[in-house]
Amino acid sequence: MPLTRFYLPNHVATAQARALADVVHEALVMACRVPQDDRFQLMVRLAPDAMVLHPTFGGVERSADACIVEILFLSGRTAAQKRCFYELVAARAAQVGWRADDILIGLAENEVIDWSLGRGQAYTDAELADSLA
Amino acid sequence: MPLTRFYLPNHVATAQARALADVVHEALVMACRVPQDDRFQLMVRLAPDAMVLHPTFGGVERSADACIVEILFLSGRTAAQKRCFYELVAARAAQVGWRADDILIGLAENEVIDWSLGRGQAYTDAELADSLA
Amino acid sequence: MPLTRFYLPNHVATAQARALADVVHEALVMACRVPQDDRFQLMVRLAPDAMVLHPTFGGVERSADACIVEILFLSGRTAAQKRCFYELVAARAAQVGWRADDILIGLAENEVIDWSLGRGQAYTDAELADSLA
Repeated sequence: MPLTRFYLPNHVATAQARALADVVHEALVMACRVPQDDRFQLMVRLAPDAMVLHPTFGGVERSADACIVEILFLSGRTAAQKRCFYELVAARAAQVGWRADDILIGLAENEVIDWSLGRGQAYTDAELADSLA
Repeated sequence: MPLTRFYLPNHVATAQARALADVVHEALVMACRVPQDDRFQLMVRLAPDAMVLHPTFGGVERSADACIVEILFLSGRTAAQKRCFYELVAARAAQVGWRADDILIGLAENEVIDWSLGRGQAYTDAELADSLA
Repeated sequence: MPLTRFYLPNHVATAQARALADVVHEALVMACRVPQDDRFQLMVRLAPDAMVLHPTFGGVERSADACIVEILFLSGRTAAQKRCFYELVAARAAQVGWRADDILIGLAENEVIDWSLGRGQAYTDAELADSLA
């Protein structure tokens, strides 16, 4: 159950933003065993002066297109899965016109009981097991 | 000390958004012993193409009005409290015109020391105890 | 590796918002040993009716300029560091025209493996050590 938020400069084209969203979801599916249909993404657009992103911190070169991807998802993914996720996002984003240096990712974790997908019901381990079966 | 963020489609009327905010706060008060005055809510509006919400994942049927409710609050609520919270939100939201399937909730937790309510002061266990007294 | 989000009323001037962002970053550097260049901040503007902030909860007096500062950063900061951070923000924000009562801060934590600063690479303990050397 990942909830992904993208913070993107206003000038990035909608199609380009959507291409990144597709890439991030596919990488979650492949690297983190997220179910294909478990896709919940929000795209927040910001003016250039509303995004203060250091141009080189972390040894990369950020352009004016740099964006932030913040994901809240279930705890339990291993370091290896997270590394694989980062690599997949970068590799595939490059194929659809994104500079890999422009994608900063932050992850935060919660537990199964911390989600209700609707209808007033808690997301349960049983449902989770089903979705991963 | 919950901070609640609502991500809502632009077309949802302000009064309808506010009705949901009221419901969520009352459910936090009832289910999670949040003080009545401890209300801090942010409503972020997004264009339809900026919200990618799977229409049926989790066994519900989402409409074009589907929204996300994300809450950062103090750790310590039990699974039973969280379940009660989800159920209350759904039941009461339905009374004010929301479809329960359109409300996806995600919770994240932090600790008392992680809040300053203003004036440069840390939120302390003492204040917390007072507010719950 | 802090990611800071500011939720500010639309009417707050850009220069005033930026002054707060400067203050928060400097306080992170001083109180929490965040590297000077490790600055990543997002400013989300909201209409007044999209911010429901209780006017006095927590023993402060919030004005129409009240804002929320939410920070996701690496776990490990002590309670003393967090207290110092809150105090520094309030003291310095007051020097640039902010009322200390108008700044509510919430912190959330993750781990080193939860960040990729770009290029598909995980942020590593080695890089973290370097940046703090």
